Amino acid sequence: MKVKDVCKWISLKPAAVSPETPIEKVIEKVVEDPTTRSVYVVANGKLMGVIPISHLMRITAFKFSGILPEHDELKKHIKSISANTAADVMLPPLQVHLEDALEDALKLMIDNNVQELPIVDNAGNIIGDLNSLEILMGFWEMKKDGV
Amino acid sequence: MKVKDVCKWISLKPAAVSPETPIEKVIEKVVEDPTTRSVYVVANGKLMGVIPISHLMRITAFKFSGILPEHDELKKHIKSISANTAADVMLPPLQVHLEDALEDALKLMIDNNVQELPIVDNAGNIIGDLNSLEILMGFWEMKKDGV
Repeated sequence: MKVKDVCKWISLKPAAVSPETPIEKVIEKVVEDPTTRSVYVVANGKLMGVIPISHLMRITAFKFSGILPEHDELKKHIKSISANTAADVMLPPLQVHLEDALEDALKLMIDNNVQELPIVDNAGNIIGDLNSLEILMGFWEMKKDGV
Repeated sequence: MKVKDVCKWISLKPAAVSPETPIEKVIEKVVEDPTTRSVYVVANGKLMGVIPISHLMRITAFKFSGILPEHDELKKHIKSISANTAADVMLPPLQVHLEDALEDALKLMIDNNVQELPIVDNAGNIIGDLNSLEILMGFWEMKKDGV
């Protein structure tokens, strides 16, 4: 099964922000729509980075309580935490293509602790969105009729 | 700030299942409502365990592809993976109390990679729900009016 086989099953509207967006505004975006799992940082239609909610929580814990989890991805980005924009805290732009195997997308999500991935074309433009629920449905064979 | 100060800000309806529920039905529950972040396993009003979506994804990766991430919580539960019910795959019942510090709830979520926690009273009965968005709002001072 491929990404293209399931990526239209559940339409979530991923939040997108520009690199200059203040972190407070990024959080406002995810709070506005509780189905959001990741914020995409986009400039001129190109994906620059992603900010999963789990990452926002680690940033919050570090900023307000100085908590830095062991073995955490955050350590790689720690120098940027004192800064204040989406670009300062985003993770590298994880992404999938329509023709990717669903298994690879699942592994990418687990390894990076995210539940939503942008789908990009060969030019790097965002053309869709794959979420964890679609992957679960695909593997557990909960096909939607008429898709 | 305490759990009770923010836990009514965003009403998500956490999914609850009985311990005997087949895994397929658990996944149907989370797919039904894309705001769901965790499934609570409940018997007679008492919390027996939790199944975060991130855990369902790791179970799926193991079941269908034999993928077992390094350093993963799943390893502790691996003997139960061949079984088929909510009770077989649930994690220990993470929970918070109304009087707990919000900082402790945030740390608990990060350490266990979950984004939703049941609130229980001293008798262990579920009386509410705390989600990651409420915690973000609390720390970043996005207070809701009239709460």
